[in-house]
Amino acid sequence: MKKIALIAAGGTGMRMDANIPKQFILLHNLPILMYSMNTFFSYDNNLEIRLVLPESEIKTWEKLCTQFNFKINHRIIAGGETRFHSVQNGLADITGTSLIAIHDGVRPLVSKETISNCFTIAEKSGTAVPVIPLNESIRKIDQEDSFAEPRAFYRTVQTPQVFQSELLLDAYNTEYQEEFTDDASVVEKAGYKIYLAEGNQENIKITSTLDMIIAEALLKQSKK
Amino acid sequence: MKKIALIAAGGTGMRMDANIPKQFILLHNLPILMYSMNTFFSYDNNLEIRLVLPESEIKTWEKLCTQFNFKINHRIIAGGETRFHSVQNGLADITGTSLIAIHDGVRPLVSKETISNCFTIAEKSGTAVPVIPLNESIRKIDQEDSFAEPRAFYRTVQTPQVFQSELLLDAYNTEYQEEFTDDASVVEKAGYKIYLAEGNQENIKITSTLDMIIAEALLKQSKK
Repeated sequence: MKKIALIAAGGTGMRMDANIPKQFILLHNLPILMYSMNTFFSYDNNLEIRLVLPESEIKTWEKLCTQFNFKINHRIIAGGETRFHSVQNGLADITGTSLIAIHDGVRPLVSKETISNCFTIAEKSGTAVPVIPLNESIRKIDQEDSFAEPRAFYRTVQTPQVFQSELLLDAYNTEYQEEFTDDASVVEKAGYKIYLAEGNQENIKITSTLDMIIAEALLKQSKK
Repeated sequence: MKKIALIAAGGTGMRMDANIPKQFILLHNLPILMYSMNTFFSYDNNLEIRLVLPESEIKTWEKLCTQFNFKINHRIIAGGETRFHSVQNGLADITGTSLIAIHDGVRPLVSKETISNCFTIAEKSGTAVPVIPLNESIRKIDQEDSFAEPRAFYRTVQTPQVFQSELLLDAYNTEYQEEFTDDASVVEKAGYKIYLAEGNQENIKITSTLDMIIAEALLKQSKK
């Protein structure tokens, strides 16, 4: 089946005191965004890569591609107001049957195995999200109180989240709702069952300076 | 009020392919266990430190203290079969009113602020556990299915978990149950309300080689 990777990098968040969006920050001398694009390409070099960027950052990205001699073929799509709208834009002209992997641009350390696990399960079952066990105890907040929850019943959700195209396009044919925290929640809301795949521990989402430090360390280790 | 730190390091787990228990592994040239003991001492050098170790590892620890010239005064107590039993042993001869902080020996990067936050809230309210927000989406497993949960309603739980002594001793005067995942869950089960304090992101629990790499990086950064 035809495979598409939609890299969601529509955020302009600059929470890390950098003057460029997070997805462009250099991680060990390469923009964060290029790592996962490299990994998707190395998983399957026939895969179609769509990159959703804030419209205002497209020129900067094109300059970065030249500067870093980044040759992986991809199509650039302008993002929307929220991640939901950015994904909608990225899906706009998709027709026919394919498997679509939606990946957070700020998860550079996704492994080829995670990508492969998700495509394999989604091909069979229609949906697949990579998960890992929780390392720590959790409590659930309920009004003024909080309660211990058995962490064995929970999983941390990563990306890429992979879906058969018909099902994903159907789910995204809706209005934005606040409870849409990831693509699986959109698809789940439309009534489809979400299947779980095995993620990789290193596949962290970079949202803070601390995450950058962790990612640098993990990357260095993986190169040993 | 008198303050006690009970460092729970009763595990003999050697999941990291090392031939010594995790809490003795060197993190940037110092055994993991010594970090949090140093931080408790620097928070309050009148605080009583009790260290619960596997009986079989007490001699090794004493050698490490000599080798690393570790001078912080502490009392060593032999642990039990599970963490619950180890904490019970650590509490065995405590009488009178005090505030007791129970801390995971494999959380070397707890900050003085986190310790202070917890003691302050427990002094006022009887209980305090440090928590941080979840960085990632979670799903809850329910039989064969799983469902998106709003992560804003959840917190990741750390240590030290601080309790007024009467309340803690009352709660631990019970039989071990599988649902006891941390001290707060024991105290909660006894009918006490758990209050939340602000933890620190760096305060990770070291359970894998990956965690060691992350901890090394965080430690290096904190020294800059």
